Amino acid sequence: MKKLISMAMLTLLSLGLSSGVAYAGDYGKQKVVYHINMDDPKVLKAALGNIQNHLNAVGKDDIDLRVVMHGPGIALLQLANKDPDFSDKISNLKRQGVHFNVCNNTLVGKKINYKNDLYDVSKDDIVPSGVAEIARLQSLGYAYVKP
Amino acid sequence: MKKLISMAMLTLLSLGLSSGVAYAGDYGKQKVVYHINMDDPKVLKAALGNIQNHLNAVGKDDIDLRVVMHGPGIALLQLANKDPDFSDKISNLKRQGVHFNVCNNTLVGKKINYKNDLYDVSKDDIVPSGVAEIARLQSLGYAYVKP
Amino acid sequence: MKKLISMAMLTLLSLGLSSGVAYAGDYGKQKVVYHINMDDPKVLKAALGNIQNHLNAVGKDDIDLRVVMHGPGIALLQLANKDPDFSDKISNLKRQGVHFNVCNNTLVGKKINYKNDLYDVSKDDIVPSGVAEIARLQSLGYAYVKP
Repeated sequence: MKKLISMAMLTLLSLGLSSGVAYAGDYGKQKVVYHINMDDPKVLKAALGNIQNHLNAVGKDDIDLRVVMHGPGIALLQLANKDPDFSDKISNLKRQGVHFNVCNNTLVGKKINYKNDLYDVSKDDIVPSGVAEIARLQSLGYAYVKP
Repeated sequence: MKKLISMAMLTLLSLGLSSGVAYAGDYGKQKVVYHINMDDPKVLKAALGNIQNHLNAVGKDDIDLRVVMHGPGIALLQLANKDPDFSDKISNLKRQGVHFNVCNNTLVGKKINYKNDLYDVSKDDIVPSGVAEIARLQSLGYAYVKP
Repeated sequence: MKKLISMAMLTLLSLGLSSGVAYAGDYGKQKVVYHINMDDPKVLKAALGNIQNHLNAVGKDDIDLRVVMHGPGIALLQLANKDPDFSDKISNLKRQGVHFNVCNNTLVGKKINYKNDLYDVSKDDIVPSGVAEIARLQSLGYAYVKP
């Protein structure tokens, strides 16, 4: 099916019918870690949009995408605890397979109760160190994106 | 020739004639993707300077350097459409082999006409998704730099 | 010994005695480059905290951590030249094996005398180009973190 679509797109391209896209973007399988350590709501909202676009481009079944939050970046899940615009987007991304991981150093340092203060975090979502997790994932072949 | 230069530099270094540089920097071949998603003209200008310095350090024939722009980062080519200081630098980098790629999601989302609104973009410069392209390049061994 | 600790932690985890940490974080060996090109003292201070947390999580003997500074990021060592809060943290990180590398292009461009203007820089700490060094390290398997 994928092959058929690719062929159809190639035909479209060769006919000059594409609307400005250089190539159709069969990105193959991807593993990616998004590094979130900023607390500007505008940047965080844009990051969620980037992630959705990333899923759309690669296909949710072909991507393993992890969002790792630490330091001020924990604000993403604090905002989501109050603002449905954030929580809806996060839930929607989770339904598409995106993992959201929280740094335990940050929880301890900022005295954050993950059950009350953050949106939809379970014990399995917590990693000992956000930065060490980001490095670990890269050593396993994950690409790095800082929104 | 390269070997000769390296040997000459080693000699200089061993004679203590170098002026504060630890080693001469034979960086070998490099593949790098620069991630541009910010619109602060000062940061964008600095990024162009970083890229030129990167080319100078590695040698333009030994580096495959891609600049991927998405979201607010598209500002780089909007600025260059009006400000010769930006367009001159971009043209100069292109002459040295640097590729500038634009995210199609951004063009559609911001209703940007790449022919009129952006500096020197052709159809081949457009990628379906900036973030997916950045991850794709890393999976091919490109290093990541966020200016 | 490490195995013993891991086993002890597994036991603790299986007994449900852990306090919210999903797993104990045996991160194995890591190589990481931190990219510093910002001059906001708050961000720079946070970066030093990130690096200490990173060392703590992985273990100082199991991590090769390089901090590469260029452009405005040189401010880190200018601040440390005046503010003991910065210099103490940097010295402490160095004692744990962290390398701090300075971009020679930046020194030349900003007319900085590394002996007088920067905290504790020796000739061996200077690299020809910060960005080329960051790409070089990634090509050698170092993960990238932009604080």
